[in-house]
Amino acid sequence: MLTFVQILDFIGTFAFAISGIRLASAKRFDWFGAYVVGFATAIGGGTIRDVLLDVTPMWMLNPIYLICTGLALLWVILFGKILVKLQNTFFIFDSIGLALFTVVGVEKSLTLGYPFWVAIVMGSITGAAGGVIRDVLINEIPLIFRKEIYAMACVIGGLFYGACHLAGLESYVCQIVGGVAVFLIRILAVKYGLCLPILSGGGSSESEEE
Amino acid sequence: MLTFVQILDFIGTFAFAISGIRLASAKRFDWFGAYVVGFATAIGGGTIRDVLLDVTPMWMLNPIYLICTGLALLWVILFGKILVKLQNTFFIFDSIGLALFTVVGVEKSLTLGYPFWVAIVMGSITGAAGGVIRDVLINEIPLIFRKEIYAMACVIGGLFYGACHLAGLESYVCQIVGGVAVFLIRILAVKYGLCLPILSGGGSSESEEE
Amino acid sequence: MLTFVQILDFIGTFAFAISGIRLASAKRFDWFGAYVVGFATAIGGGTIRDVLLDVTPMWMLNPIYLICTGLALLWVILFGKILVKLQNTFFIFDSIGLALFTVVGVEKSLTLGYPFWVAIVMGSITGAAGGVIRDVLINEIPLIFRKEIYAMACVIGGLFYGACHLAGLESYVCQIVGGVAVFLIRILAVKYGLCLPILSGGGSSESEEE
Repeated sequence: MLTFVQILDFIGTFAFAISGIRLASAKRFDWFGAYVVGFATAIGGGTIRDVLLDVTPMWMLNPIYLICTGLALLWVILFGKILVKLQNTFFIFDSIGLALFTVVGVEKSLTLGYPFWVAIVMGSITGAAGGVIRDVLINEIPLIFRKEIYAMACVIGGLFYGACHLAGLESYVCQIVGGVAVFLIRILAVKYGLCLPILSGGGSSESEEE
Repeated sequence: MLTFVQILDFIGTFAFAISGIRLASAKRFDWFGAYVVGFATAIGGGTIRDVLLDVTPMWMLNPIYLICTGLALLWVILFGKILVKLQNTFFIFDSIGLALFTVVGVEKSLTLGYPFWVAIVMGSITGAAGGVIRDVLINEIPLIFRKEIYAMACVIGGLFYGACHLAGLESYVCQIVGGVAVFLIRILAVKYGLCLPILSGGGSSESEEE
Repeated sequence: MLTFVQILDFIGTFAFAISGIRLASAKRFDWFGAYVVGFATAIGGGTIRDVLLDVTPMWMLNPIYLICTGLALLWVILFGKILVKLQNTFFIFDSIGLALFTVVGVEKSLTLGYPFWVAIVMGSITGAAGGVIRDVLINEIPLIFRKEIYAMACVIGGLFYGACHLAGLESYVCQIVGGVAVFLIRILAVKYGLCLPILSGGGSSESEEE
C-alpha cells in the first residue's frame, strides 16, 4: 500500500512539474526558471497546506520532489516535441496527481485534529494551489478560475471522503472513494466540457472600488 | 462588546469578499474562481499575519469566514446589477473592514508580545494585504499601490493606537481611537481624492537592473 | 566579524530595496507602494525561508530592515536622477546582497539541523525569492527566470559551501568561499552575458493543459 501511494505521488509530482515546465517554456524561460516553475507547481499546494497547518513542508523532508522535478525538466528538454502526442497520457497523470494530492491533504489535516471543513479546504489547496502559483509566476490569470471544473473536483472529492468517514468506513476506503471521485469528476469535466457558470453582474473593472 | 466586534468583523469580511468577487467577475471568472478570489481577499491579510506570527490562521478556527464569503457570492449572483447603486454603502463597509482588521492585527501582535513597530506592520498587513493578493490573482497591478491613501491609513491608525497606548489609556480606548482614525482617513482620502506623491526618478523600466 | 556581516547585510538590503523601489517607480507607484515593493524585495526571500523553517522572520526581530528600506526610498526620491550614473555601483551592491543572503540562508538552515540539499534550496530562496515577489507585485514575469544567471549563482555558491563543509573546513571559511562564489559567478555572468539555455519544445501556450 505504501509503495503504491508513493508511486502515485511520484506520477502526480511528475505530471504537475511537467505542466509548470511546459507553460514556462511557452514563455521562453531558461532552464532554471522552468525548473523553478515546475517545482513550484508540484509542491506549491502542499507547501501552503503545511505552512497553514504549521508542519514542515513535505518536500523539505525528502529530496524526491526536487529529483522528480529534475527528471521532468530532463524529459521536456529531451522529448519536448513528442509531448504533444502524449497529451492524453499527461492529462491522466495530472488527474491522478490532483486526486492523490487532495486525499493526502484531507488525510493530513484530519490526522492533525482539524475538523472536516478545514480538511476539505486543505485538500483543495493541496490539489489546486500549485497551479495557481504556476500561473502567477508566468504572469497569467490562473487557469483554474476560468476553465473546466478543476478545484471544484477537489472540494467534491473531499465531501465524498467526509461522507464515507461519517458513515463509519475505514480510513483507506474513505481515501479511495475520495480520490476516485476527484479523478472521475475531473475526467468527466474535461470529456464533456463541464464548466461552472461564469459570474456576471459585478460591473465593469473600472468601477468596483469606492 | 464581543458581539459588536463580531458584527463588524462579519461586515468587513463581507465587504472584502464582495470586492474580490466583483473584480473576479469583471475578469469573467467562474463561480468557484470568484469565490476563491473573494475568500482570499477577505482572509488573505489575516492569514499572512498569522503565518508570520506563527499562530493558526483565524479562518481555520471558525467556518464563519467561508460562510460569509459564500453569502457574498450569493449576493453578487442575485443582486449584482443593483450593486452599482450601493457603491457608497459598500465603500463604507469596506472602510469598516479596513479599520477593524487593522486594529485586530495590531492587538493580536501586541498580545503575542511583539513590539509596537511590528504590531503596526501586522495591522497594515491585516488590513491591506488581502487586496494585494486579490489583485495578484486577477493579474492586475495592486490597486493600493497607486490609488487613494489606503494602506497608509492602516499605518497612521496603528500610530494613533500606539500613541494612546503610550499615554497609558485602556486597551479598548486605544482600539477605538485607532480604528476610527483608519476609518476617517480612508473616508477623507476618497472624498477629497488624497493621494501620496507618485515616485519618479527611478528611470525607465528597461534600465533598472545591472 | 559580526559588524562586517552587519554592514554587508545593510548594503545588501539597501541594494535590494533600491531595485524594488526603482521598478515600482517605473510603474508609477506612489511612495507607499514603492516602499512596500522595496521592502518586499529586500525581506521577501528571508521571510519565505523563515516561514518554511518555522522561525520568526528576521525583520520582525530588528527594525533595521524597515529603516533601511526607508533610507532607500529617501535616496530614490532625492537622488533618483543620478542613480543611472551609479548603475555599476548598485550592481555590485546587489551582488553583495545576493552573496550574503545566500550564505545566511544556507547557514541558518544548517544550524537548524536541516540537510545540505535543503540548505542550498533555502540559500537560493533567501537570495532570489525577493526579486520574484517584486516582479509579481509589479505584474511582470520574474526577471530571474529569463535573464543572466542569477538564482543559479546561489545554487552553485551553496554547492561550494557544501564542498568546503564536507572537506572539514571551518564554518567561516565555508561562508567566505560560498559567498565569494555567488558574487563572482553573478559578476562574470553579467560581464560576459552568460545565460542558461532557453527551454523550448514545450509547445504553444494554448495547448499545454488537457
